[in-house]
Amino acid sequence: MPDFSIGVDLGGTNLRIAAVSTDGQVLERVTLGTNLASGPDHLIGDMCGAILGLSAKYRSGGSFLGVGAGIPGIIDMESGTVRKSANLPGWSGYPVREEIERRIKSQFILENDGNMAALGEKWLGAARNVPSMAMLTLGTGIGGAIVLDGKVWHGMNGMAGEFGHVPIEPEGVPCGCGSHGCAERYASATAIVRMAREAIATGAATALAKAANSDAEFSALAIFNLAMQGDEDARQIFRRFGKALGFLLAGMVNGLNLEMYVIGGGVSSAWEAFAPSMFSELRERSLIYLATEPEAASGTGKDAVPVGGRRKTIVTRALLGTDAGLLGAARIPVVGL
Amino acid sequence: MPDFSIGVDLGGTNLRIAAVSTDGQVLERVTLGTNLASGPDHLIGDMCGAILGLSAKYRSGGSFLGVGAGIPGIIDMESGTVRKSANLPGWSGYPVREEIERRIKSQFILENDGNMAALGEKWLGAARNVPSMAMLTLGTGIGGAIVLDGKVWHGMNGMAGEFGHVPIEPEGVPCGCGSHGCAERYASATAIVRMAREAIATGAATALAKAANSDAEFSALAIFNLAMQGDEDARQIFRRFGKALGFLLAGMVNGLNLEMYVIGGGVSSAWEAFAPSMFSELRERSLIYLATEPEAASGTGKDAVPVGGRRKTIVTRALLGTDAGLLGAARIPVVGL
Repeated sequence: MPDFSIGVDLGGTNLRIAAVSTDGQVLERVTLGTNLASGPDHLIGDMCGAILGLSAKYRSGGSFLGVGAGIPGIIDMESGTVRKSANLPGWSGYPVREEIERRIKSQFILENDGNMAALGEKWLGAARNVPSMAMLTLGTGIGGAIVLDGKVWHGMNGMAGEFGHVPIEPEGVPCGCGSHGCAERYASATAIVRMAREAIATGAATALAKAANSDAEFSALAIFNLAMQGDEDARQIFRRFGKALGFLLAGMVNGLNLEMYVIGGGVSSAWEAFAPSMFSELRERSLIYLATEPEAASGTGKDAVPVGGRRKTIVTRALLGTDAGLLGAARIPVVGL
Repeated sequence: MPDFSIGVDLGGTNLRIAAVSTDGQVLERVTLGTNLASGPDHLIGDMCGAILGLSAKYRSGGSFLGVGAGIPGIIDMESGTVRKSANLPGWSGYPVREEIERRIKSQFILENDGNMAALGEKWLGAARNVPSMAMLTLGTGIGGAIVLDGKVWHGMNGMAGEFGHVPIEPEGVPCGCGSHGCAERYASATAIVRMAREAIATGAATALAKAANSDAEFSALAIFNLAMQGDEDARQIFRRFGKALGFLLAGMVNGLNLEMYVIGGGVSSAWEAFAPSMFSELRERSLIYLATEPEAASGTGKDAVPVGGRRKTIVTRALLGTDAGLLGAARIPVVGL
């Protein structure tokens, strides 16, 4: 039996916990419901119970190396506390690491969930063998993470990687952050629905209007389905989405010159609809990308691992889906922050 | 007498060489004219002669630690050659490091001149005591450099820090790089002259028109002087310049979360004219900046060194002027790449 660690992924709906061997095999998963609003005490009790159960079970076969947990918020890495989280009321200032380590008697490492997802993709997903990469997680907004030479780049206050709020439209749409024209106003699920509602408001987008009327939860997925059925208005929305994402990526490529940019999150499922315009914009906007573009279109995971000494800029889809964060969390105790 | 190293700054007009003590005192400077078009052989002969002279002279008093040289181009760090340089015809593929080390019998480190300037500001200038910073050098274009935890971030191909080509205007002015709307089209000396000529073309900017007619080399400096004299058209140009620079910086702050962003280069002399609109745009566009802005306006070097545990985002002027690259080059052999 192998050495193993435990990864924790604290999401809005589920608390997912897995024992993972050091060679990347998931030994066992536990999924618990979460009631984030009730504060940390109860949840941490559940979490520690599951951790203790899994560690006792697999300890007989190999060394238990500790626990990593991905949390939706800004983490104070030094103290192991949550500095700020919109989704975790009552957690700010709570001594998370201290309390959990006291209960489980093992190393416990707290990290932002977006950073965990990037580490997961780097360990077992699209960015295997790639030393330095950035990840964009396209969901309600855009999450971001930077990994340089194998380590997360946190920035001075743990806030690095806020690519969703890189401005891309000088006279753009207002954003919740107080700015306007932020990238996530143009390349997120929210942005897709907004653009669809704007198209409907012009009176021209009849298929979109019909879908919106018949579907109470008119979603990015519904609009993607219309695009895949060939509806020109829906396709145009994903072209604009891709153009915005390419614009953002061009700035990242020109500034950072990394080996790989991984696009994950729920909306990355719409890759076919937005990738052509994304790559087109990226080629137009980044001399570095143009000079280092892989020969094959980097539309699939096939291109994800650079061969030999080639120094290509690869923009590709994430491969691990919602497991990325869980696996990255399990990796942290093994390789360290 | 102290230990010392030698810095070399290869510019378009001058080859500057200085012996610098490890505590930052310039022991002696040598300035030679350069004829870049004649290729590397002759220039490297001159350079090695000056290096050998200086090292012999100061060697009696302390250890000679080697030579660093800043070069305007993309450097292949592994081979010590110039990969690409618009200003150094004939240098591409020339074994620069090998040839110089053969002649001077000492360590010789080649690095991009923008990166050298950032290291100089970090050693003795605005970014003393700051572990991680980026520098923008505002001249004909925008040069850029990133220093993370004291080391230059080169990116996979030595091309990181091309912030001048981060796109900031979706429908912007064409750029020499093949894209359009790049930051340097809006925040460089070239951009100032372009905006002035555009203002003149409208027929309204009479003072600018008069200056352009009477001055064959109608320059950014002439336009700055008009702005300082209160000419509203000239002032408006620097406000637009500051807004563009703030837009670029907001993306950098949101993506990288560094302690400091240093603004250097000849055009940084116009700080008073563009800084107010730059800071205004930055506050509007970056929640991270707003949350970490120093209490005092960070308009001068006074704020450059963060006090104690404060983690503030400081945007400030470079302090070393044209010496930054020379001093950074002298630092490289001491601290390593």
